[in-house]
Amino acid sequence: MRTIAIDAMGGENAPEAIVKAVLKAKTELPETKFLLFGDKEQLRNLIPANQISDQLGVVATTEVIADEDEPVKAIRHKKDSSMVQAANFVKEGKADALLSLGNTGALLACGIFIIGRIRGITRPGLMPTLPVKNSDEGFNMVDVGANAKSKPEYLLQWAQMASYYAKKIREIENPRVMLLNNGAESDKGDEVHQEAYKLLKDSNLNFLGNIEGNELLLGKADVVVTDGFTGNAVLKNIEGTSSVLLHLLKDSLLNSGMMTKLGALLVKGSLAGLKSKFDTAKYGGAVLLGVNAPVVKTHGRSNERPIYYTLKQVDKMIAENLVAEFRDEFATK
Amino acid sequence: MRTIAIDAMGGENAPEAIVKAVLKAKTELPETKFLLFGDKEQLRNLIPANQISDQLGVVATTEVIADEDEPVKAIRHKKDSSMVQAANFVKEGKADALLSLGNTGALLACGIFIIGRIRGITRPGLMPTLPVKNSDEGFNMVDVGANAKSKPEYLLQWAQMASYYAKKIREIENPRVMLLNNGAESDKGDEVHQEAYKLLKDSNLNFLGNIEGNELLLGKADVVVTDGFTGNAVLKNIEGTSSVLLHLLKDSLLNSGMMTKLGALLVKGSLAGLKSKFDTAKYGGAVLLGVNAPVVKTHGRSNERPIYYTLKQVDKMIAENLVAEFRDEFATK
Repeated sequence: MRTIAIDAMGGENAPEAIVKAVLKAKTELPETKFLLFGDKEQLRNLIPANQISDQLGVVATTEVIADEDEPVKAIRHKKDSSMVQAANFVKEGKADALLSLGNTGALLACGIFIIGRIRGITRPGLMPTLPVKNSDEGFNMVDVGANAKSKPEYLLQWAQMASYYAKKIREIENPRVMLLNNGAESDKGDEVHQEAYKLLKDSNLNFLGNIEGNELLLGKADVVVTDGFTGNAVLKNIEGTSSVLLHLLKDSLLNSGMMTKLGALLVKGSLAGLKSKFDTAKYGGAVLLGVNAPVVKTHGRSNERPIYYTLKQVDKMIAENLVAEFRDEFATK
Repeated sequence: MRTIAIDAMGGENAPEAIVKAVLKAKTELPETKFLLFGDKEQLRNLIPANQISDQLGVVATTEVIADEDEPVKAIRHKKDSSMVQAANFVKEGKADALLSLGNTGALLACGIFIIGRIRGITRPGLMPTLPVKNSDEGFNMVDVGANAKSKPEYLLQWAQMASYYAKKIREIENPRVMLLNNGAESDKGDEVHQEAYKLLKDSNLNFLGNIEGNELLLGKADVVVTDGFTGNAVLKNIEGTSSVLLHLLKDSLLNSGMMTKLGALLVKGSLAGLKSKFDTAKYGGAVLLGVNAPVVKTHGRSNERPIYYTLKQVDKMIAENLVAEFRDEFATK
């Protein structure tokens, strides 16, 4: 039986939304066990007694890591936090994967220091799946901020793992890999990106060259590899720019004359469709690639739906033996 | 009399849109001389004979630098191109500033190698003005790609020049300067950004700390300083994300039922307002800070309106003696 350790106390809608998502996923994934880590009273009140079974368990913890906690300090001092205890279960082999909506830095620290790096991987990288313009496929971007400083070899390893993920989990036959850079030509960028270009070109990946910041959402690549600093700025910028535009749109429709308001009512459905295009719920959470078990972060603002999809994503990662494949691949190098 | 050297052959709408913008700006700026560099025949056909005067001249050139030309090679080999000749006029003191819609890399090369760096400035930086959510003010971001590799000292100099620009040209009293980084805390980022933070904090700038990629369009800063690699990715990403969202919006309104189409008609005005919010025409072009004259790039797709605003921006930069101020400021250091 596959077992997912779930930090039930992280995120704005914890633990309610997390429990709801688990109850939904549970019936669809009868082969999978869900372990909820968190406050016993709160969880008991949310879970109908008849639902507690071999497939659904609660592990009582007394502490919670807050978003504003300093990550490394937090995992060192809050030993009985839901996140740390869930990570310990994975480390001890009592669970196969870790899911959290909490403090991203602390979750990365749990992955790297408690669950541990895969032998042969220099630096784990954080990889979300993001939407593209004319398809439901989306693309993977890595690293989006696990590393402030990146070396060319890290980028190669991230590309290799992300490409494998795209193939096995997203079922893309021959994932197109591109390097985020400041121009199309092979000699663009600083030394890190020039060298990363060469490594990617010499690898057996389906490497299509450089991609620029304005092309990310056009669907030219299945995997975009980037240094963690730039990736972080760009990921946040996609979120920020979309959010500002959608707000401005809403404002300009609401703060306008009668006729426009009527029009707004009529186009409402279309706009909801647009929003769902940029609602990344169905892609699941961001994966910390390169550690000894699937460690996945879902956005702190997530409600039931994205958490449910993330549970299915994590389950598939366990079923496909993704981490074992990485271990084999990188240990021999 | 102030003189602006204008590359009339760069950009998608050259030379028509450029000539139109000059004819419009000319009547509003009677103290300013406009020198158009480009194909004599084409320009003569576009400019009414009675408009040629002390205030408007044509300098005939025979070559054009294309967007796909390699920048440094292009300025070396296309000696009689409109861009290079315009730059030569500035170098020789026959014009005070250079404006082009052409190849950005070639224009940067003209600025750095023909017009030359200001003594004391290590690396010039490229600075556009970008829109923000709840104000018409916008913000300046520097560097957005003149440098693939950046050092902390460059970032300090860019921040100093951009802050001065914001004060004198955009008339913002005490410009708020922030550093694009991967978190709010002072120790965030790699060594370059950690060190840049310290330099900015110890300077006499109105430095408010770090800003993250999702906050750029919220109006928290008047000047955002960033390394040129990240700045390039983020600038292009703002353009790309906005463009994809607006296209999706248009598509979803057009490819929908009768009622939505009627609604779309009613909200059209509001959407145009939204688009104008993200139409940066009124901010003028991107300035190459740190060279011996105002060198300004307007987007290659620009039509008359943004070019007209850029002419006014360039004129103000000459009138305010911006470059002389930079010379005094950095020579004494």
